[in-house]
Amino acid sequence: MKRMKVTQPPMGWNSWDCYGASVNEEQLKGNADYMAKYLKEFGWEYIVCDIQWSEPKAESTAYHNFTELEMDEYSRLIPAVNRFPSAADGNGFKAIADYCHSLGLKFGIHIMRGIPRQAVHRNTKILGTDKTARDIAQQFSVCPWNTDMYGVDPHKEGAQEYYNSIFELYASWGVDFIKCDDIADTKFKPNDPYSAREEIELMRNAMNNCGRDMVFSLSPGPAPVAEAEHLKAHADMWRITDDFWDQWDLLYDMFWRCNTWQEHVAECSWPDCDMLPIGKIALYEEHDGKRGRYTRFTKPEQVTMMTLWSIFRSPLIMGGEMRDNDEFTLSLMTNKAVLDMHKNSCKAHELYRKETENGGDIAWVSQGKDCKYLALFNTADEERELKFDLTEILMPGKVYDLYELWGGESFTAADEFKVNIEPHGAKLYKIK
Amino acid sequence: MKRMKVTQPPMGWNSWDCYGASVNEEQLKGNADYMAKYLKEFGWEYIVCDIQWSEPKAESTAYHNFTELEMDEYSRLIPAVNRFPSAADGNGFKAIADYCHSLGLKFGIHIMRGIPRQAVHRNTKILGTDKTARDIAQQFSVCPWNTDMYGVDPHKEGAQEYYNSIFELYASWGVDFIKCDDIADTKFKPNDPYSAREEIELMRNAMNNCGRDMVFSLSPGPAPVAEAEHLKAHADMWRITDDFWDQWDLLYDMFWRCNTWQEHVAECSWPDCDMLPIGKIALYEEHDGKRGRYTRFTKPEQVTMMTLWSIFRSPLIMGGEMRDNDEFTLSLMTNKAVLDMHKNSCKAHELYRKETENGGDIAWVSQGKDCKYLALFNTADEERELKFDLTEILMPGKVYDLYELWGGESFTAADEFKVNIEPHGAKLYKIK
Amino acid sequence: MKRMKVTQPPMGWNSWDCYGASVNEEQLKGNADYMAKYLKEFGWEYIVCDIQWSEPKAESTAYHNFTELEMDEYSRLIPAVNRFPSAADGNGFKAIADYCHSLGLKFGIHIMRGIPRQAVHRNTKILGTDKTARDIAQQFSVCPWNTDMYGVDPHKEGAQEYYNSIFELYASWGVDFIKCDDIADTKFKPNDPYSAREEIELMRNAMNNCGRDMVFSLSPGPAPVAEAEHLKAHADMWRITDDFWDQWDLLYDMFWRCNTWQEHVAECSWPDCDMLPIGKIALYEEHDGKRGRYTRFTKPEQVTMMTLWSIFRSPLIMGGEMRDNDEFTLSLMTNKAVLDMHKNSCKAHELYRKETENGGDIAWVSQGKDCKYLALFNTADEERELKFDLTEILMPGKVYDLYELWGGESFTAADEFKVNIEPHGAKLYKIK
Amino acid sequence: MKRMKVTQPPMGWNSWDCYGASVNEEQLKGNADYMAKYLKEFGWEYIVCDIQWSEPKAESTAYHNFTELEMDEYSRLIPAVNRFPSAADGNGFKAIADYCHSLGLKFGIHIMRGIPRQAVHRNTKILGTDKTARDIAQQFSVCPWNTDMYGVDPHKEGAQEYYNSIFELYASWGVDFIKCDDIADTKFKPNDPYSAREEIELMRNAMNNCGRDMVFSLSPGPAPVAEAEHLKAHADMWRITDDFWDQWDLLYDMFWRCNTWQEHVAECSWPDCDMLPIGKIALYEEHDGKRGRYTRFTKPEQVTMMTLWSIFRSPLIMGGEMRDNDEFTLSLMTNKAVLDMHKNSCKAHELYRKETENGGDIAWVSQGKDCKYLALFNTADEERELKFDLTEILMPGKVYDLYELWGGESFTAADEFKVNIEPHGAKLYKIK
Repeated sequence: MKRMKVTQPPMGWNSWDCYGASVNEEQLKGNADYMAKYLKEFGWEYIVCDIQWSEPKAESTAYHNFTELEMDEYSRLIPAVNRFPSAADGNGFKAIADYCHSLGLKFGIHIMRGIPRQAVHRNTKILGTDKTARDIAQQFSVCPWNTDMYGVDPHKEGAQEYYNSIFELYASWGVDFIKCDDIADTKFKPNDPYSAREEIELMRNAMNNCGRDMVFSLSPGPAPVAEAEHLKAHADMWRITDDFWDQWDLLYDMFWRCNTWQEHVAECSWPDCDMLPIGKIALYEEHDGKRGRYTRFTKPEQVTMMTLWSIFRSPLIMGGEMRDNDEFTLSLMTNKAVLDMHKNSCKAHELYRKETENGGDIAWVSQGKDCKYLALFNTADEERELKFDLTEILMPGKVYDLYELWGGESFTAADEFKVNIEPHGAKLYKIK
Repeated sequence: MKRMKVTQPPMGWNSWDCYGASVNEEQLKGNADYMAKYLKEFGWEYIVCDIQWSEPKAESTAYHNFTELEMDEYSRLIPAVNRFPSAADGNGFKAIADYCHSLGLKFGIHIMRGIPRQAVHRNTKILGTDKTARDIAQQFSVCPWNTDMYGVDPHKEGAQEYYNSIFELYASWGVDFIKCDDIADTKFKPNDPYSAREEIELMRNAMNNCGRDMVFSLSPGPAPVAEAEHLKAHADMWRITDDFWDQWDLLYDMFWRCNTWQEHVAECSWPDCDMLPIGKIALYEEHDGKRGRYTRFTKPEQVTMMTLWSIFRSPLIMGGEMRDNDEFTLSLMTNKAVLDMHKNSCKAHELYRKETENGGDIAWVSQGKDCKYLALFNTADEERELKFDLTEILMPGKVYDLYELWGGESFTAADEFKVNIEPHGAKLYKIK
Repeated sequence: MKRMKVTQPPMGWNSWDCYGASVNEEQLKGNADYMAKYLKEFGWEYIVCDIQWSEPKAESTAYHNFTELEMDEYSRLIPAVNRFPSAADGNGFKAIADYCHSLGLKFGIHIMRGIPRQAVHRNTKILGTDKTARDIAQQFSVCPWNTDMYGVDPHKEGAQEYYNSIFELYASWGVDFIKCDDIADTKFKPNDPYSAREEIELMRNAMNNCGRDMVFSLSPGPAPVAEAEHLKAHADMWRITDDFWDQWDLLYDMFWRCNTWQEHVAECSWPDCDMLPIGKIALYEEHDGKRGRYTRFTKPEQVTMMTLWSIFRSPLIMGGEMRDNDEFTLSLMTNKAVLDMHKNSCKAHELYRKETENGGDIAWVSQGKDCKYLALFNTADEERELKFDLTEILMPGKVYDLYELWGGESFTAADEFKVNIEPHGAKLYKIK
Repeated sequence: MKRMKVTQPPMGWNSWDCYGASVNEEQLKGNADYMAKYLKEFGWEYIVCDIQWSEPKAESTAYHNFTELEMDEYSRLIPAVNRFPSAADGNGFKAIADYCHSLGLKFGIHIMRGIPRQAVHRNTKILGTDKTARDIAQQFSVCPWNTDMYGVDPHKEGAQEYYNSIFELYASWGVDFIKCDDIADTKFKPNDPYSAREEIELMRNAMNNCGRDMVFSLSPGPAPVAEAEHLKAHADMWRITDDFWDQWDLLYDMFWRCNTWQEHVAECSWPDCDMLPIGKIALYEEHDGKRGRYTRFTKPEQVTMMTLWSIFRSPLIMGGEMRDNDEFTLSLMTNKAVLDMHKNSCKAHELYRKETENGGDIAWVSQGKDCKYLALFNTADEERELKFDLTEILMPGKVYDLYELWGGESFTAADEFKVNIEPHGAKLYKIK
């Protein structure tokens, strides 16, 4: 079977930023309803259930060491019925996926690399083989922040079969998107006792043969640029950062991360800036900040974030509880001109970065069919006037029409123009 | 209770070099018989059972991932009855220890740092507490070469109680010597997710309160010299090298290892050069060399090894199946003059090391009550004449009596003397 | 007095590449005649007499250690009359300068930093002071390749007066251009026993007050970029390379040198790629190659050199004996469109450099008033087809007129075009 | 002719520490008289005239840049008659050398590597050749602290002849000791534009053939240890330090310098700790301290210095004006037992160096025919009790006689003894 072509950066919603390890069926479906009603027409389509969905005791962001997980007889994790009632009787996520599909949306799940430690110690079976979990576990490969799994030793008989068996299960549920965790950060390094590279390959292989198209997303980051070609060959998107939260320093860092990866943005190759922590987040407990807060980002910072993610063409995955969106948050997600650029532009790159003591001027440019896009960022802590020399990207001696995509102003300019930008803010121009 | 004073470097036998992970009761007792008959009078006293004694399936040097171990209800490993029949009915190693004691010998066992993974996944109890194995396991601390255990998190309630419970069990069996593994190599480094330092402290504490004197030996090496003071405060001996086998390059390395540690040799502080791989070793399978071999060391190399271990005052732990000793092997272990130096000399240090292209001259000196000891090593691949300047360690212009401890020659010399030494060989002099 | 504004990169001829240390009056005047007749109208104007003009015995490129120099009573070097007959009776270079001026040209000379060693050892006077050469010499500051001079100690009384006295003498002769040697390479470094920085300042000062406008050129290179601001404040041009000759590797190196300095090209700030070793050079002896040769550069390499020098806006100083120019050489120096770019463009910078195993693609761009310039270089050893994406510098979706400045072809292109370029060759486009 | 065997470290007096660049005939002869009367019987024999003896204007420690030197027609420097009246009529140092010889002493002079710059610029002759100074000068080799000379280019015809001519002149004067300057410090390094190595070879050659035995001493330091074999092959002594003055930190440094060089002390190989700045020094001006001072070293520091110089066997060259010696200074120079060790001991080496926060314990040992010498140094700033373990260098369990050479105490000790030592002080024992 062929690998699906992911022609545009995926757009959707993920449960982590608002519900941590504890999202439930009602919340998934409620956000699906919201997306269908307000966002689908703008291109938003994936509803993704994040980590620990097989853990009955999950109630917040915390992981419980060695906690019992729901698992079938073939060492495969299945949804905790107390949290996802429709999963009863071995139905898995089928009903929820069906529900999303009925709304014209798609459904995704999070998985951890590897095989459950509880399967290894119980020595349960691998479907369609005479092997057991113990036979294929890489005994020294453990995730440094979660005790659920051992890595899978790709050189063992049964390893591919195990991954096949879980992807076939997901396909049978109707899953459209897999976010695989504990696999894309710098542990790629060759001296590690195990190789994440090879587990990625096993999963790609299993996905190609599971009978259903899926987007393959890798986490956490930062993924190493040196692995870019391997990532493109096997996955559709991968994190270029560790977990992203509503803090200016993390947002500021993203400029060089995007610069580092800018040459690699293409069909089936979507470097991922992580979820958008906007609107209402951290609903059940403190999570990198106060419980139940609205994003700590200022409005100009949110504009900066949406501008950078969109011109760079990162996947756009909303992190907040969408049913609590205020008007401003919704407006950020429904700007047609900006989303048109996100879907259809090309050749985005950082044009310059001028550092000063308190921040600096950063400019990104990209192209539409017959226009150029220009994003100007003021990373300083105060409002400043920025000047842009149009001849750097266009013929000197001509007059151009400029349209600012967030505010809607139009004006003409020859050779250069000036603009005031708020602290940590951005302007995004379409130039004809 | 007080910590025992270990006034001289321990001497004994360990099952690893000959039986790997699979020694049994008959073999332990057979070697005890041999020791009592031939070696006890020379100071040899410990019979030590090495790794995997709780694993029923052990049959060679190999470890079996996630193998079942025999364990009591309190998460404590106990001997596999199929290998140690006297352990039936929960008797543990009591009968074997008693047997050794009846011969005038002492008995020791190997343990791994931590708590069994199977206890954690079964979530079994910790004696005398309301905690379980899952509560005290350090979930990310795994040995890089053996799957039996998780580390213990020293900051958890129940951690000290667990270690108390196993040392009390060992004391009840009559154990005199504990070799704890996965604890003394360079993973001491502060950035590790766990701290071996603290587990060493828990064990010292447990040992002091278990009601029985025990020698505390740490493995594997190389232990870091920077930890010397911590090691002295808590253990009696610790490895200064990774596993040592019958290869010249490993023996040659030991010269600088001993040089590095020479200032730390003292009562209750015995840096350990590892077992003596002489006589018949690797009985059940290839083990760093051919199965069932006699040591690959040449006779001069064996003399070099015994000379360095003895003048440096490393513990002397025989690794071969002693019942297969030939005359030469036995002679190395029963040289009264050499062993007197090993027990009673002091201030050993490397006097010089003169490197040449093909090896070099190394000299070590130490002191007896009214004599000096001098060891001369020829590390070259051919026989060479070495010259020694006695005035470096003695008054010039006088005549001295020299006695070579291995060959027995006596002669007198003033100021300097010359001697031919075989390739990789040594001479060991007592000078009066 | 004010410092002259050097508004465009200087253009002229220098005697070194053809005559080494031995040029004479006839050769200077002969090249002036040629320049007036064939090149003046294109902007070429300086005739510069290079090193050793005060040495009577100079006959080639060689320096003679401790050779006698012609000098006046005030420690100032004057032209050797046997080589420059019009210098008789203390007339210096006045007659030759006058001759150049009568042709509508300008005249320049080379000097060495410092004061003649022979003046120091004879202890001759400094004009207008009671000091002597011995008083102001920096006794340990010696040029590493020529024995004529000691450095001048800027902290000594008489140092500024000495430099004043030589610049006044040069002004009285009618000199318009000073190339000062042994002053601009990495010996700027602060730990040197002397400071070239301070001697540059003394000379700037003397030049400002000598009563005549002069261009101030520093040699040899590479001048350190860290000194850029100091160089701009005191000199008009400075070498960015060691001596440049007709060798591809040196030409290839110039790409990164120009890239390094590209931000510093401006009025009164002309980083200098060194003389153009084209046409007939090395007339009197082997000089970095065969005597009396025509340049070893291929025609495509010469086009590459002229293209890079011109778009970067290096000074253009012809090195060959111009009276021996062939038609091709002359054509390189008389391309109006190229020289218009050299005189009037701005914002030149390297757009990209794509390395391959055998060389690569380099692109430079700059701007005219209402056009863009684009230089494409093929640094590979074989002919290759290069592709250029016009949308990188222009609006996508439009059609542009392109004019190749060396070959004269015109064509139109939208978004991208392709071109074959010879090995080591270049194309230079004006785009409207 | 054969090279002289310098069997013991030279002892003498040098004019630098007291008279800098300006010593005169009366001062040389006055110190010779003193030496003959008070010191000759203890082995002191050389009277050495230090730098600038050919400069008429020298009046202190200062060098005068480009000053006129007295020179014969063959480019050879000769003594300034105003300072050395007996040098009139071309007699050079003959009369002063004769005077020393008449007292049973020997006479030495300082020279600078190379040929006078004034000879090069006057282009004077080289004796016995058709070459001139200009022909053999290495034009870029200049001493970094004195302007008198250029280096000699060893590859030029006439270079050996020039050195021959000066050594023949010195031999004709009766010179017994040459201290050559600007030749032994780290400028030995291979990337230098000239090679001091080769000038040393030219001088050794000239000395061997000049018809008179001379000691060959090289300065300044630190000479590089990597050159030890070359130094031994060509010179008799060489400085292991930059100029040494009466400061504790310089004295403290000398411990590791001596340690570095200890293996190279032998006949014709005398690493040199520099002159002894004791008694009255710096008579004419401030010279690394106050004018006309008595040494700033405390008495314990002077004992430390004499102990280290003597056990290490450095040359002993008195630096003070001996006619101003007080009783203590004279006593340091006339201790027969110490000087016997200096002349006749062997195998000196640092036994240990135990650093503490405020200084430390240093021990040196060496051997006499039938005794050991032991020097104990207290480098701390306060008096401390030091303990010495005699069994480190002698047989344990015996009783030894110890005799302290500076204070004269005798005592016996077995195995170890203790002693109080003043701040920065030393004890020196002879042990039988």
